[in-house]
Amino acid sequence: MANKNSTKRLKIVNDPIYGFISFEFPFLFEIIEHPYFQRLRRIQQLGLTHLVYPGAVHNRFAHAIGATYLMGKAIRSLRLKDVKISDEEYEAACIAILLHDVGHAPYSHTLENTLLESVDHEELSLMIMKLLNEEFNGKLSLAIEIFMNRYPRKFLNQLISSQLDVDRLDYLKRDSFYSGVSEGVVSSERIIKMLSVVDDNLVVDEKGIYSIEKFIVARRLMYWQVYLHKTVLSAEHLLVTILKRAKKLAKEKVDLFCSPSLEVFLYNKLNRETFTTDSKYLKHFLNLDDLDVMGAIKVWQSNRDPILSYLCRALIERKLFKVKIAKHTFESELVSTIKNEIKNVYGEEWIEYLLIQGKVRNNAYDHTDKHIFVNMKDGSLLDFPQAADNLNISSLSEPVEKNFICYPKSFDID
Amino acid sequence: MANKNSTKRLKIVNDPIYGFISFEFPFLFEIIEHPYFQRLRRIQQLGLTHLVYPGAVHNRFAHAIGATYLMGKAIRSLRLKDVKISDEEYEAACIAILLHDVGHAPYSHTLENTLLESVDHEELSLMIMKLLNEEFNGKLSLAIEIFMNRYPRKFLNQLISSQLDVDRLDYLKRDSFYSGVSEGVVSSERIIKMLSVVDDNLVVDEKGIYSIEKFIVARRLMYWQVYLHKTVLSAEHLLVTILKRAKKLAKEKVDLFCSPSLEVFLYNKLNRETFTTDSKYLKHFLNLDDLDVMGAIKVWQSNRDPILSYLCRALIERKLFKVKIAKHTFESELVSTIKNEIKNVYGEEWIEYLLIQGKVRNNAYDHTDKHIFVNMKDGSLLDFPQAADNLNISSLSEPVEKNFICYPKSFDID
Amino acid sequence: MANKNSTKRLKIVNDPIYGFISFEFPFLFEIIEHPYFQRLRRIQQLGLTHLVYPGAVHNRFAHAIGATYLMGKAIRSLRLKDVKISDEEYEAACIAILLHDVGHAPYSHTLENTLLESVDHEELSLMIMKLLNEEFNGKLSLAIEIFMNRYPRKFLNQLISSQLDVDRLDYLKRDSFYSGVSEGVVSSERIIKMLSVVDDNLVVDEKGIYSIEKFIVARRLMYWQVYLHKTVLSAEHLLVTILKRAKKLAKEKVDLFCSPSLEVFLYNKLNRETFTTDSKYLKHFLNLDDLDVMGAIKVWQSNRDPILSYLCRALIERKLFKVKIAKHTFESELVSTIKNEIKNVYGEEWIEYLLIQGKVRNNAYDHTDKHIFVNMKDGSLLDFPQAADNLNISSLSEPVEKNFICYPKSFDID
Amino acid sequence: MANKNSTKRLKIVNDPIYGFISFEFPFLFEIIEHPYFQRLRRIQQLGLTHLVYPGAVHNRFAHAIGATYLMGKAIRSLRLKDVKISDEEYEAACIAILLHDVGHAPYSHTLENTLLESVDHEELSLMIMKLLNEEFNGKLSLAIEIFMNRYPRKFLNQLISSQLDVDRLDYLKRDSFYSGVSEGVVSSERIIKMLSVVDDNLVVDEKGIYSIEKFIVARRLMYWQVYLHKTVLSAEHLLVTILKRAKKLAKEKVDLFCSPSLEVFLYNKLNRETFTTDSKYLKHFLNLDDLDVMGAIKVWQSNRDPILSYLCRALIERKLFKVKIAKHTFESELVSTIKNEIKNVYGEEWIEYLLIQGKVRNNAYDHTDKHIFVNMKDGSLLDFPQAADNLNISSLSEPVEKNFICYPKSFDID
Repeated sequence: MANKNSTKRLKIVNDPIYGFISFEFPFLFEIIEHPYFQRLRRIQQLGLTHLVYPGAVHNRFAHAIGATYLMGKAIRSLRLKDVKISDEEYEAACIAILLHDVGHAPYSHTLENTLLESVDHEELSLMIMKLLNEEFNGKLSLAIEIFMNRYPRKFLNQLISSQLDVDRLDYLKRDSFYSGVSEGVVSSERIIKMLSVVDDNLVVDEKGIYSIEKFIVARRLMYWQVYLHKTVLSAEHLLVTILKRAKKLAKEKVDLFCSPSLEVFLYNKLNRETFTTDSKYLKHFLNLDDLDVMGAIKVWQSNRDPILSYLCRALIERKLFKVKIAKHTFESELVSTIKNEIKNVYGEEWIEYLLIQGKVRNNAYDHTDKHIFVNMKDGSLLDFPQAADNLNISSLSEPVEKNFICYPKSFDID
Repeated sequence: MANKNSTKRLKIVNDPIYGFISFEFPFLFEIIEHPYFQRLRRIQQLGLTHLVYPGAVHNRFAHAIGATYLMGKAIRSLRLKDVKISDEEYEAACIAILLHDVGHAPYSHTLENTLLESVDHEELSLMIMKLLNEEFNGKLSLAIEIFMNRYPRKFLNQLISSQLDVDRLDYLKRDSFYSGVSEGVVSSERIIKMLSVVDDNLVVDEKGIYSIEKFIVARRLMYWQVYLHKTVLSAEHLLVTILKRAKKLAKEKVDLFCSPSLEVFLYNKLNRETFTTDSKYLKHFLNLDDLDVMGAIKVWQSNRDPILSYLCRALIERKLFKVKIAKHTFESELVSTIKNEIKNVYGEEWIEYLLIQGKVRNNAYDHTDKHIFVNMKDGSLLDFPQAADNLNISSLSEPVEKNFICYPKSFDID
Repeated sequence: MANKNSTKRLKIVNDPIYGFISFEFPFLFEIIEHPYFQRLRRIQQLGLTHLVYPGAVHNRFAHAIGATYLMGKAIRSLRLKDVKISDEEYEAACIAILLHDVGHAPYSHTLENTLLESVDHEELSLMIMKLLNEEFNGKLSLAIEIFMNRYPRKFLNQLISSQLDVDRLDYLKRDSFYSGVSEGVVSSERIIKMLSVVDDNLVVDEKGIYSIEKFIVARRLMYWQVYLHKTVLSAEHLLVTILKRAKKLAKEKVDLFCSPSLEVFLYNKLNRETFTTDSKYLKHFLNLDDLDVMGAIKVWQSNRDPILSYLCRALIERKLFKVKIAKHTFESELVSTIKNEIKNVYGEEWIEYLLIQGKVRNNAYDHTDKHIFVNMKDGSLLDFPQAADNLNISSLSEPVEKNFICYPKSFDID
Repeated sequence: MANKNSTKRLKIVNDPIYGFISFEFPFLFEIIEHPYFQRLRRIQQLGLTHLVYPGAVHNRFAHAIGATYLMGKAIRSLRLKDVKISDEEYEAACIAILLHDVGHAPYSHTLENTLLESVDHEELSLMIMKLLNEEFNGKLSLAIEIFMNRYPRKFLNQLISSQLDVDRLDYLKRDSFYSGVSEGVVSSERIIKMLSVVDDNLVVDEKGIYSIEKFIVARRLMYWQVYLHKTVLSAEHLLVTILKRAKKLAKEKVDLFCSPSLEVFLYNKLNRETFTTDSKYLKHFLNLDDLDVMGAIKVWQSNRDPILSYLCRALIERKLFKVKIAKHTFESELVSTIKNEIKNVYGEEWIEYLLIQGKVRNNAYDHTDKHIFVNMKDGSLLDFPQAADNLNISSLSEPVEKNFICYPKSFDID
């Protein structure tokens, strides 16, 4: 009966950015309900950025769903332009983007390569997809092919991972929405409507070049104003330094408060090989999230190790280190002065924890990475910098690199 | 070749509310490009409301396209709930909503029944649809059936014209967007997702009752804060009064500056019969828009008739009449006092132009009109006031009626 | 030099809702930087609501700052209406609203009265304000007077705590923003402009009555669609039940993984008296936040107590209990059936943990609480329900009460 | 009595972008109510852009008020940074920005220099300010000084007219809001908070450089996507061509339907000298608005002159000319071919009306205009391109020039 049919209820996710999200493929909801995916609820998208932008407390769970929503939009838009995409390809592309970040460590990029060295989050995502593929009897096989870029129709991978992928289209919009940095707002919908496919590669229609230019500039600004904001840098490096100290103490068999899974990563020297050969480590990894890390740090504030407790209090009470950032490297004189002061006040061992040095870099358009090709009205394809009419985009494609040092405000010598 | 296909360009309308709008049926663009539809660009959606809310300068053109966009959303959502709707029905419903307002007179409702008595805008819309149907060789026949509510699947008509139609869903959102009265914002998308069809009638899913309640309250507020705002009332009745005076002068063969088509409506006594029997009048009507009316009024500011010029200057210079509004009727004493003053200062003839009286009414939920039925989880259908858990919705369904008088501020006797 | 002055930098908080927030009183930033206030970063505003609305992950920190921003707006607007407010009163009102929620337990209302019985969050806020007042040498004295409603100018307290306070104006807007439930959007700015003061009491200008009506309806809808959403109810009662089980085990001296401060609340029987007499308990309370609770629950998933681990896995993996909600109480038969089934499958001890019963209530306008008075144009003051022209607001002031039961989906007997 | 004071009502303008706008200076409302300013309600901000972006129907009235609102924000922000600004200066800056566009001709820039040659809108604004200054007994004197940049505190003029003035900050935001081109959204509020004053010149704080970069790119994009959109170009040049034909006919004493004030500008050969010496011409100019022009064009659709009626029908029915746009000049061959075709079909006289040629140019950052100086943290001032870290801003400061030709689609020879 029509009556009965009409009462079918749609499964819906409410998203503050896109409104109602529903998916055509019920299998996507099975993945979303899986504990490996639910874990993303407990990993903040922007790590400690909320210490500067208090609204930016969103998590990887919402981002992954948002990116999948945009994937659906992109595929339906391409189909309207008569690009043939089968339902299997459509679903697989959605699965791949839904899971593209599932391998993130706690605090996202901040602790990538800290708790677990030499295995990056994309490799971990792939390992977890394979685990799920077993559990779901091969239903993720095509998604994995696409994710690994082994599938001949390259544009499906390019939608997941390129300079104009739905990952970026979602995170720039989302991060800008939550942080309140309205400059980062990207017109994802407009850009998606500008995408086409030529010879199985993703291209942009010529009339989209201003939108792309704007997208690249917005991304560049989000880098400097949010992702690499100097106070964020300071907080994130403090977090890394805390873990470094904790691992040092763990190596010395000091007993530290921590959850069982965090214990595994603190007290074992895991390398790529040990990690990939014994599957129990991946299971422990899948238990880890922001709660384990920050919950431990809170307790470590009163740890007996003075360095560890100093660092943890600085983070929890938000007494962050001062940061200096510069295009040039810092003069050795300044660095020595600070080192000396730290040594005098606290002792030599403290130096490597209280004086944090590093580099940040950002290139707005990366010409070593997959290019953005523009589909000109005359039928030719041009690399984006060639197509852009005037702006010296090549300048955007040179990476900007900056140096920074962080140290407690008490040593401020200005 | 895939290459060639992929370069197909979509026809798109940019809407500040919904973003990119594109339609699946190319015929809709043929209608949009027709001069009868283009005319809606020159008819403001909210008449003179912009004198109070300066942003509210949008026109019927954008509203009609927006409502058509929502129709598409509604039909696609119903299809996902397994309501069978053929492509022909889908297209016809879109045509009908696209043209539902094509018969509006200049300044929309303000001058309905002023320039042309006793033919309302819906009847005019129907006449114009029939004209177009001839021109397009019967392509609008099904749309006309639906519009006239002769088509058996009632929900298609209900989507166009009922207490929960896409017309209202668009205009409340649009009017609130442009006026800046954020209270009127209606979650059109959410309500559309809550719609179902039972026995070919439109119903609302039970879980949508709070959204409907909110929708009804929002509509009620838009009435009192925008549509019936007292300064808007004053301006609109001034406009009506100007036309009344101009027609009086025209009847007396006074020569008035006006465009040829406006001349037809000022100088001829048209009634329903003359209008419908001679098609040239409809053609002249289709030449009329806000420009003819306000362009004439501007010139009439220096007309030799002192009443006409007085009224026109009051409107153009925005020296609007004072309005008093009350639940009760105004005491005859007050009214006589003002009449006397007008007579003393200007003379008896002025009274009917300087003292404007009338009533406004609004009922938020109209139980004499098509009801909103709620599809309860147990399968029963309830009229909305029964389904709403607590709010005494019956109170909302009693019309509120208010009386008003307007007169020049110089006669203010408070 | 002008030059020098002009380079003064403003301290700014970036809020996704209001944009840049800056405060005129530097002391407010001292409070914000204090660890007691920083702790609010780790307490989610809406507890577990994000399990239903994934975007709703905002915390009390941002809410408190947002409410303080609105307080500033309100006071500046009142001053423009010639209400005399001294700078001391202004600052004190800001301090009081900034700290009004500082006493919240982890997961806000969910665990209020669970970890610590019989001391509600407002009393705790007051205790913490007094602690800060000592630390800051009496600078909070006036704020405390206002917060306790001992200060003669009642409107200052009413701005903090009444049916139209800046607390509600912020949280409705914020919760609706983050959850994506656009129906809850409240025009805070408009309402604030409508506030006046008569005889030191807060009133609303007559022309604001539609805005107030809309505000009350929006609040009512947020209650049913978000705060009391049935899946949210289920999750929150599951959390309460977990803590209940953990406390039971703690009483039996079972060793549970937990942070030191959580240990204090699990293993001690604290009542109002013990808590208020020994200040160390308040210090421990100030160490507690969402991390302690959810971090422990994650570990308890593999606890040896089968009830505790069952409950914790249900929460972490989001296998939430089924909820039934009804106006009437549930028939004892249904309840007995479920109890029996639980007993048969798991044993009698499980019943109280797997069958959760309770009531929820909401009244949109509370006529037992501080009334909203409307300042009519004729100078009289009316209680809001009298002033509203038509809507039977009295219906809104009767509380709606609903009953619910939750139990594992495996016992679903529909 | 406090009671009485508290009922003071604020005069408020509702703006869809900024919400409630109120001004501290009652005199601003006197100007707003003046017929010269009310006229701006009838001049669309973006001329015929609404033919491409249907939402973009906003007028100069709302823009002028919006820019004045931002002026208030800017001045209050500068005062918080201890820049001394007297109330007189504050009010004068507001008056000057409120009136900066009061001299616009119908259809804004489109008809600038068409109806009235060799007097641009800024000069006309100044003439009207002086007229108002007489009427208001010198109350605008300081505003005029500032507007003419004769007042020593240059930053006040720079806020009105420079590369970073509140005029641009409003119109970019407003045009992008109404057109729906979200790429143009500019964070006006953020930029305003970044402004400082050094030696009475407006500067930008160093931390604002990314915002400025984004602002410049957004402006550049708005130019190409909206202001110089090729269909907009086509429509606007068609309008100019219509007026050119009408003036030609008027010169030949052909009788054309038009309002009395339009008649003055069509039938008299006005030059700068005649216009400025006889004040009646300015009065007629102040009667002219979009209604006069478009109202006449509608009637001219059936004018006996075939060229005029052809052009007018093309505009009203939106059968716009095809546009070709290119960096290079068009080959003479193409141009000759089209000319020949026009000649063959319509006759030689038509050529200059059916083949429209021209150039457009845009430079994002104009280094020949007032520079944007950045106030570096070390106290130095740098020109913006020097301060921007990487982007080759110099490329943005080279103007982009493009050529275009328009002709009826029937001559399309692709």
